[in-house]
Amino acid sequence: MDAEAKNTEGTPEGTPEAWRDIIPDAARRLMTAAVHAFAERGYHATTTRDIAGRAGMSPAALYIHYKTKEELLYQISKVGHRSALDILEEARDAAGTPAERLADAVRSFVRWHAEHHTTARVVQYEIGALAEDHYAEITAMRRASEGAVRAIVEDGVKAGDFDVPDARGTTVAVLSLCIDVARWFNPRGRSTPDEVGSLYAGLALRMVGAG
Amino acid sequence: MDAEAKNTEGTPEGTPEAWRDIIPDAARRLMTAAVHAFAERGYHATTTRDIAGRAGMSPAALYIHYKTKEELLYQISKVGHRSALDILEEARDAAGTPAERLADAVRSFVRWHAEHHTTARVVQYEIGALAEDHYAEITAMRRASEGAVRAIVEDGVKAGDFDVPDARGTTVAVLSLCIDVARWFNPRGRSTPDEVGSLYAGLALRMVGAG
Repeated sequence: MDAEAKNTEGTPEGTPEAWRDIIPDAARRLMTAAVHAFAERGYHATTTRDIAGRAGMSPAALYIHYKTKEELLYQISKVGHRSALDILEEARDAAGTPAERLADAVRSFVRWHAEHHTTARVVQYEIGALAEDHYAEITAMRRASEGAVRAIVEDGVKAGDFDVPDARGTTVAVLSLCIDVARWFNPRGRSTPDEVGSLYAGLALRMVGAG
Repeated sequence: MDAEAKNTEGTPEGTPEAWRDIIPDAARRLMTAAVHAFAERGYHATTTRDIAGRAGMSPAALYIHYKTKEELLYQISKVGHRSALDILEEARDAAGTPAERLADAVRSFVRWHAEHHTTARVVQYEIGALAEDHYAEITAMRRASEGAVRAIVEDGVKAGDFDVPDARGTTVAVLSLCIDVARWFNPRGRSTPDEVGSLYAGLALRMVGAG
């Protein structure tokens, strides 16, 4: 936490890869503007006018793409959680030993939370502002993410490679460790996303009693 | 994360023990009201009028105790971080082996973040809204917390009880794991604060290669 700086205002970060699919360009620009506005002031303190202004658009132009501020938060959450789920399912389905797959999952998941820490904070901390149906959909994606990691953990136990007294609790802990990187990670700090990813992959293997 | 529910609105939680020292009673009531308001809508979307109203007081009465909204956030952060630091320094200075002291630190720190998850979220997520001098003071307390845990880790390495390739990174990870409990913990969920604390104490010992 030594690495912390007052960077909740959202240090510039690249557009998450998954967002490249969002068309038209104006819709993507609005999502980026919304992420930064939400990260800086919080969801409830942000108006659609703020978001449109940041994107260099009029409020009327915003409404063509998103009917409400909540719709923007929902899209940000959905795309963010989709990326997370893709990373974890890819690791689950990869070739390799359970230890290799767990290390791979943690490394990629940490890297995502470090590189896209502003987006990740919005996705993680503003979840309570979603409408009930959207909240239910996002919660289902979170359960699927947890399921992907738990499948790797259980494969390791079955193979006799891992020693895990509580597979559910340990899976929650491994994911939680990765997610919290978004809170403390500082791109001007001591460690790169890759370095944190490698350290955490090793720690996760210890947590499951591998080797 | 299965344990998650839409509980960012701040499920009622007891007043943190450290707050009992805050006098007069009106000042403590305002702090409690502020924690719940900040947790529900975020710092920037909350007005001092909202906080006074929740505490059943007039805005003028609020100003007797706190000159600004930021002053309230600062007091909440200071008392919260003071509690965290006390817990960790007590564990550092206790009798016992490094493994016992680390397990003790993690168990108490997790329990605090689970029991006071609403306060902990405000303390952890709104830190960027503090004024520069207050931010610096809180950051120093965070560094001291990290130092307390790192001292236990280094004692364990020196004693030959722990095997830790990166003491700084591993200390950050252990603290991060505990802090993130405040994000996902749900008092209506599957595990009690004590159960999470025990599980996490065991995981932390694995992370430092104890035993």
